[in-house]
Amino acid sequence: MPDLSAATRGRILFGGDYNPEQWPEETWHEDVRLMKDAGVNSVTLGVFSWAKFEPHPGAREFDWLDTLMDLMHGNGIGVVLATPTSSPPPWMGRLHPDTLPVTEDGRTEWWGGRQHFSHSSATYRRYAAAITEDLAARYGGHPALTMWHINNEYCTFDHGDQAAVAFRRWLREKYGTLDALNTAWGTAFWSQGYDSWDGVLPPRQPHYMKNPTQVLDFRRFTSDMLLECYVAERDIVRRHTPHIPVTTNFMPLWFGQDAWRWAEEEDVVSVDIYPDPRDPLGAQQGALVQDMTRSQARGPWMLMEQAAGPVNRRGVNHPKPQGMNRLWSLQAVAHGADAVCYFQWRQSRQGAEKFHSGMVSHAGEQGRTFQEVKRLGAELARLGPEVTGSHLESDVAILHDWHAWWAGAQDGRMSTEVDHAEVVRAWHRALWEAHLTTDFAHPEHDLSAYRLVVVPQLYLLTDTAIENLLGYVRGGGTLVCGFLTGVADENDRVRPGGMDPRLRALFGIRTLHEWWPLHAGETVECDGPGGGFRGTLWSEELQAEPAAVAARYKGGELDGLPAVLRTGRAWYLSTLPEPDALRELLAGIAADAGARPVLDDLPTGVEAVRRGDLLFVLNHRREPVQVTVPGPHHDLLTGGTVTDTLALDRYGVAVLRP
Amino acid sequence: MPDLSAATRGRILFGGDYNPEQWPEETWHEDVRLMKDAGVNSVTLGVFSWAKFEPHPGAREFDWLDTLMDLMHGNGIGVVLATPTSSPPPWMGRLHPDTLPVTEDGRTEWWGGRQHFSHSSATYRRYAAAITEDLAARYGGHPALTMWHINNEYCTFDHGDQAAVAFRRWLREKYGTLDALNTAWGTAFWSQGYDSWDGVLPPRQPHYMKNPTQVLDFRRFTSDMLLECYVAERDIVRRHTPHIPVTTNFMPLWFGQDAWRWAEEEDVVSVDIYPDPRDPLGAQQGALVQDMTRSQARGPWMLMEQAAGPVNRRGVNHPKPQGMNRLWSLQAVAHGADAVCYFQWRQSRQGAEKFHSGMVSHAGEQGRTFQEVKRLGAELARLGPEVTGSHLESDVAILHDWHAWWAGAQDGRMSTEVDHAEVVRAWHRALWEAHLTTDFAHPEHDLSAYRLVVVPQLYLLTDTAIENLLGYVRGGGTLVCGFLTGVADENDRVRPGGMDPRLRALFGIRTLHEWWPLHAGETVECDGPGGGFRGTLWSEELQAEPAAVAARYKGGELDGLPAVLRTGRAWYLSTLPEPDALRELLAGIAADAGARPVLDDLPTGVEAVRRGDLLFVLNHRREPVQVTVPGPHHDLLTGGTVTDTLALDRYGVAVLRP
Amino acid sequence: MPDLSAATRGRILFGGDYNPEQWPEETWHEDVRLMKDAGVNSVTLGVFSWAKFEPHPGAREFDWLDTLMDLMHGNGIGVVLATPTSSPPPWMGRLHPDTLPVTEDGRTEWWGGRQHFSHSSATYRRYAAAITEDLAARYGGHPALTMWHINNEYCTFDHGDQAAVAFRRWLREKYGTLDALNTAWGTAFWSQGYDSWDGVLPPRQPHYMKNPTQVLDFRRFTSDMLLECYVAERDIVRRHTPHIPVTTNFMPLWFGQDAWRWAEEEDVVSVDIYPDPRDPLGAQQGALVQDMTRSQARGPWMLMEQAAGPVNRRGVNHPKPQGMNRLWSLQAVAHGADAVCYFQWRQSRQGAEKFHSGMVSHAGEQGRTFQEVKRLGAELARLGPEVTGSHLESDVAILHDWHAWWAGAQDGRMSTEVDHAEVVRAWHRALWEAHLTTDFAHPEHDLSAYRLVVVPQLYLLTDTAIENLLGYVRGGGTLVCGFLTGVADENDRVRPGGMDPRLRALFGIRTLHEWWPLHAGETVECDGPGGGFRGTLWSEELQAEPAAVAARYKGGELDGLPAVLRTGRAWYLSTLPEPDALRELLAGIAADAGARPVLDDLPTGVEAVRRGDLLFVLNHRREPVQVTVPGPHHDLLTGGTVTDTLALDRYGVAVLRP
Repeated sequence: MPDLSAATRGRILFGGDYNPEQWPEETWHEDVRLMKDAGVNSVTLGVFSWAKFEPHPGAREFDWLDTLMDLMHGNGIGVVLATPTSSPPPWMGRLHPDTLPVTEDGRTEWWGGRQHFSHSSATYRRYAAAITEDLAARYGGHPALTMWHINNEYCTFDHGDQAAVAFRRWLREKYGTLDALNTAWGTAFWSQGYDSWDGVLPPRQPHYMKNPTQVLDFRRFTSDMLLECYVAERDIVRRHTPHIPVTTNFMPLWFGQDAWRWAEEEDVVSVDIYPDPRDPLGAQQGALVQDMTRSQARGPWMLMEQAAGPVNRRGVNHPKPQGMNRLWSLQAVAHGADAVCYFQWRQSRQGAEKFHSGMVSHAGEQGRTFQEVKRLGAELARLGPEVTGSHLESDVAILHDWHAWWAGAQDGRMSTEVDHAEVVRAWHRALWEAHLTTDFAHPEHDLSAYRLVVVPQLYLLTDTAIENLLGYVRGGGTLVCGFLTGVADENDRVRPGGMDPRLRALFGIRTLHEWWPLHAGETVECDGPGGGFRGTLWSEELQAEPAAVAARYKGGELDGLPAVLRTGRAWYLSTLPEPDALRELLAGIAADAGARPVLDDLPTGVEAVRRGDLLFVLNHRREPVQVTVPGPHHDLLTGGTVTDTLALDRYGVAVLRP
Repeated sequence: MPDLSAATRGRILFGGDYNPEQWPEETWHEDVRLMKDAGVNSVTLGVFSWAKFEPHPGAREFDWLDTLMDLMHGNGIGVVLATPTSSPPPWMGRLHPDTLPVTEDGRTEWWGGRQHFSHSSATYRRYAAAITEDLAARYGGHPALTMWHINNEYCTFDHGDQAAVAFRRWLREKYGTLDALNTAWGTAFWSQGYDSWDGVLPPRQPHYMKNPTQVLDFRRFTSDMLLECYVAERDIVRRHTPHIPVTTNFMPLWFGQDAWRWAEEEDVVSVDIYPDPRDPLGAQQGALVQDMTRSQARGPWMLMEQAAGPVNRRGVNHPKPQGMNRLWSLQAVAHGADAVCYFQWRQSRQGAEKFHSGMVSHAGEQGRTFQEVKRLGAELARLGPEVTGSHLESDVAILHDWHAWWAGAQDGRMSTEVDHAEVVRAWHRALWEAHLTTDFAHPEHDLSAYRLVVVPQLYLLTDTAIENLLGYVRGGGTLVCGFLTGVADENDRVRPGGMDPRLRALFGIRTLHEWWPLHAGETVECDGPGGGFRGTLWSEELQAEPAAVAARYKGGELDGLPAVLRTGRAWYLSTLPEPDALRELLAGIAADAGARPVLDDLPTGVEAVRRGDLLFVLNHRREPVQVTVPGPHHDLLTGGTVTDTLALDRYGVAVLRP
Repeated sequence: MPDLSAATRGRILFGGDYNPEQWPEETWHEDVRLMKDAGVNSVTLGVFSWAKFEPHPGAREFDWLDTLMDLMHGNGIGVVLATPTSSPPPWMGRLHPDTLPVTEDGRTEWWGGRQHFSHSSATYRRYAAAITEDLAARYGGHPALTMWHINNEYCTFDHGDQAAVAFRRWLREKYGTLDALNTAWGTAFWSQGYDSWDGVLPPRQPHYMKNPTQVLDFRRFTSDMLLECYVAERDIVRRHTPHIPVTTNFMPLWFGQDAWRWAEEEDVVSVDIYPDPRDPLGAQQGALVQDMTRSQARGPWMLMEQAAGPVNRRGVNHPKPQGMNRLWSLQAVAHGADAVCYFQWRQSRQGAEKFHSGMVSHAGEQGRTFQEVKRLGAELARLGPEVTGSHLESDVAILHDWHAWWAGAQDGRMSTEVDHAEVVRAWHRALWEAHLTTDFAHPEHDLSAYRLVVVPQLYLLTDTAIENLLGYVRGGGTLVCGFLTGVADENDRVRPGGMDPRLRALFGIRTLHEWWPLHAGETVECDGPGGGFRGTLWSEELQAEPAAVAARYKGGELDGLPAVLRTGRAWYLSTLPEPDALRELLAGIAADAGARPVLDDLPTGVEAVRRGDLLFVLNHRREPVQVTVPGPHHDLLTGGTVTDTLALDRYGVAVLRP
């Protein structure tokens, strides 16, 4: 299979979504001039062009795209060509209402926005296949074509009648018999036993709480249906162009899509990253997504979309201060990106996203945004040959699994304060602030290469995953595990004792009496080395092997009971320590396990990442800093030499070669 | 008619909902072993078994229940047998969509949860009657059967077309003519006059505010329709087993059900009580429900459901700390319960409530929860012969009426900060903290036995109720009445002058100029004996007979105007005093009226209740306390003797016989 | 055309909505007695009488109204006769479901409230025309008739199928071709190109953000459809009675109605004003609506509805303290009202608004409310001959345009903290507190008569409007303009550079780099004369002509960049100064422009307004004040003389003639 290197060929891809259909043809030539000025070498065409390609059912209008493909090629700009299937033309809903999704309370999602398609609609899939076929046939041989981009940010749910039919088909394939389904879903509870496949529905608005396994399977089904849509289009383009890599762009940590499973079906893993410029942890949010995407890609990946300035979907939308666009772009490269792209090239003057920034903002060529884009383009061009294709090495992995997330994010759980994604973010933050380069992994992956594996929270674990964790520890690995892990099996059936007995044995838990979730802002005191710490979100009433107790609760109802357990290399945290404490704890355990930070003694807010033989140092602070680096390095961006001390301006970046 | 004593026969019923269909048969035998270990003498079967009984329309599968009835009987455990009609099998909605409820904005409530039935559906009622008939015929003679439990927590609303038909029928029965309905509903306002019964609907989503009398009648109708469902099933089982008592379990202070009216149709009044273990007023909430249920039962009652540990429907669900389950269970006995039962026996491993605790929790036999249940079972067995069948005496009654609540809880009222149930809780709390044993009564009940009657708020009062109150005071009773009382008649028509003239005369109110509702957190100062107090929620601009003024507002717009009125034995409070002030005020009035606390000089947080000749003393604090008791008592729980001073541990309880 | 003077004939109209159909006939005579006692000279009949007029389709019952018209006439009370079309009888929805509106997510708005009619329903319009015709024919010649009142508070949206048909018709008339619509709506974005008129819908619930121009046109369409309904009825009554003025009552600053456009179709502009009595800025809110209504009327206007006491639709509804009803009524007269009316005469005892006060409250004749109404009636009678028909003069205008508001109030904007109406209120408050009498104007109006024009925010400006502003400044006018002005053209297409180049040139803006919206509570420091000020809501990253910079940001990301620009008589504020700073700034600019306050040295909270040759002085404070007035005046209310110093009680008012 082709991979990202087929498109990069030694350059970092730089560019973005380009929507020329919004502009008169004279603007196209102005665009090319500015693109060349900025070092743009890649644009994505066609993402929202379905109504332009197929203004009436079955019509085809490709001439305009011919012109643009040629124009790009003639100017040395490669094209990532998108199938336009994420936003069907209005005629589709009008002529085929069965293509429209329906919410869980029975409301139709109409055209007039985007993504108004049911993944389960045969009509939609037929039209999508036809336009994909024709695009692939026409442009498969065009020299500008560097990559296929299928659809855009797959993310729709459908609870309607089309989806009901598809859900039943999916369930029959999974369970074979209704008896098996009834058992898996625990329908004995609340008299929910099905006597007919026709009675099985997507989880629609009930009078009171839904069946959680039905909801879990519906989330699996949704991810799978969307994946079927992707694979169908991918197979069409691949048939025409086996040498051209295929991708679809993820939204980061998006709830609805099992990205581990999806990444296996992609030649290039790409993602859209939009941290809030105002968020003091924005850089860490970015790093998390970058680490996760790199782990899914198992190598270089593509930053398909970011914003050169503000977005327009937050309540209050902040622009990026001077230098931040460069900083976060180079951070992505440090974390393994071989492509730095944007939505979109030129800011729209109309439509729902006209206040979402572009590489060329409303302020135009003289605007600060474009001026900064231009500078970045030049730097990326310099870095390209040094960095593309190279890998990061990590001793630490964070385990994450969508199925665990799906199963845990239900009504009727113990605490609505516990947000799985926030818990993952808290653990990644601790490692990131400890300057430990971190991969993500699936709980069933081979973990033997890591010195330290952390499990922020895996409420659901399969037997295979549990055995994998046990084997990892037996094999010498160090495992640190957060609360609400191993509670349920793959059908969301609570394991005996409220937590898998094998895991309890691993950590030294005799009896898990009760969970004591904490309210927002509530904390629990814990003793422990270094004066103790405060726990947040959760606490537990446990009986443990006495030798396993590493820290205890102090005061309150749990006074004197175990808070942190350690048995050999296996650690269990029954609460979420506050950020500083979690960082200290994990840093210490990592050091014991032989996992080292990239650099020692880094100032707060400065990030160091080693990619291949290059050392990226990034200052996420608004103040200049001095960083000690080991020995002389060549600074690829300035061309100068750094010995011992590196000075970085606010938001400054250095890319150093020893 | 049979009553609760037919089931208790000198024992306190102890046990809970048992859902064996969720477990393999080997677990059933383990269950029986643990039940006997814990002193369980009663289980409720069948609550959610409809799909198991009737897997296809008209099918019957009772063999498994035969086995269980025999198993229970063979082990000395009585069975409260439930009709399974609160959760129809999926086939019912699939084959008969007319059985599904519809919300006020037209959304269907689908199967997949529970209680997805329209009380107005003839189809549903036919199926419900048939399964009830067959259950009664098969098990009416079984020796394990001790009680019938109809449905479960009736609580559904329906605004759909089936309900529209039934609503019209109900209205025609009530009003006879459309003219009468138009008059009662005040349809002259906003041009709502009906010219045809077919135009009358349940109150569906309007453009702007609904007709309040239509809403009030719809709430009455809903309670009545659900009661019809209950009565239909009750009459079937009663025909088969006239000697077996029948109940349905209330939710406490549940808005949708006129429990006074319902209780008249029950042999046993039962209720589900779930105070939040984290609520500092949890014990008072429990006492309130217990007092209200005892009053509805006019004697011993059944605690049908409580949780041995946490529930799973609050945002953050707290477990019960050590001792709380015992404390609250014995509190229920003190307040008149002859049955202490749980939802459910064994915590589910699947389904929407798998994190709702059980008597046997996920931690199993060794878990703290079961160990505490076992201790409690032994104590209840000791208390049974001493306490069952005995009554409480009370000199004080709180008046409460669902119709007043329904009429007051409308859009377009003066203050959304005034929550009827919260006001009732505030007044009950004052009396509970003053250690006054309190009944609840309906405003049309005979009140002559009480020394003190308090009316927290009865926005709507019928003429009969008004005359009843006047007669009570004329007869020597002391009446204390809160604001927003007597405002409307039974059709929610405002009475002349904004408050019934007879009541105004009783309290000495000449003119009620304006209501001055207060914002959240806002208070008003009032003078009065002992330095005055602060009022919350409400204030009023009144002109009163000068002699009637007992306290005045200080400062603000109402400076110098009357706040509290007293004319003879009739008191009127135009604001809600803060908790300490309300307690002091009511305690003083009660003392003047000759109503005495159970014990004098009780520490804060300690409750004393006299039931029959037994004195229950309950420590709701987390610290040990010393309580002075009058003379020597025998402590039924320890077997020891208490003279003068009783020492109680945190959450400790003593049951004393003089 | 007739105007308001045809109805007033030298008297201030005083009275209100009268709904005799809610009362027995004996009450009518009591009402007349009290009306005469209070000086009521005008009542509005028929607003909610459709079901009474037409109890069955096509029926007519007018006898009761005959009686009332005669009764009013016989007692010297004029009648404003309403068409009853705002609340169709229940039979209309029952027989014609096509008359019911549908929400954007597909839910029907049922009868049972009011205003449950679709403006686009031909059925509704046919019935409305017929009843209007018959009313006009029957009462056009009645001597009591003084004015026609069409419908009531037009305010409904409809997204249903009827509205879809009408929307397409409206769009075809506007755009002619689909190509023009596609261009105007920017449907190239997100593949929204329409190939058929049948595909065009009202903006219904999409999966993700709607097309903003579609939403904008839908808002225009809604205002126009409602206006069509109004005009159709107006034309009917005008045909019968060309000499009788016609009005419909606005809600103040109501989002859904382009009141500039509507006012052109009215003989009398009337409005309903309900400031919250508890709002410390309630008087300013009232003044704003009064100023806007006077500007729409271009002369005397009618206060159609206010409340004598509390309303009942706020969460917590406060009554009016003693004196406030008089104060706010006289404030309306000061600002140009020749009619002071209420909803409603007698407080209802039933229905959704029974806790909305009346001139006769539930407390009746002895109630404080009626006693105050009576005093007011006497004073208005005294003022009538002095004040009716006279005009206010203003040197200052605030520009406001519904289309700009509609376009700016979309999803996907830069800040949800920016509320157009709140920004307008902030600017009006600054001028009101500076005692500058202020008109409102449309941005395309002739502005040449004003010394100062302020633009709080006009996100959308047509080319005509822009040229109008430029011409105004060229002609010597002073213009002060807030941020987010001139961003979009009439199709919500962003103008080049993010703000119209002509406006940028006017203010001295070279490049508008980025908007920096502020969070709730966030402020930015600015320097400037007098120690600087703090900005709220918004800030901007601008490059300006150096000479144009009047104030700069201090600290933060924008440190040193321009905050306030001034080029000649044109000012631009890129943030919203805090209230005191905005008042000082505008007062200074106004003084420079030659616009003077009504009086100098007024105490805070005291308002002075000159109408004709009368000087109104109003004390909005709860404390008495002393006000210096220039020379001796005759006080029309007391009959006394004021020289130099005027003493006003709390909420006191003086009406002075030099």
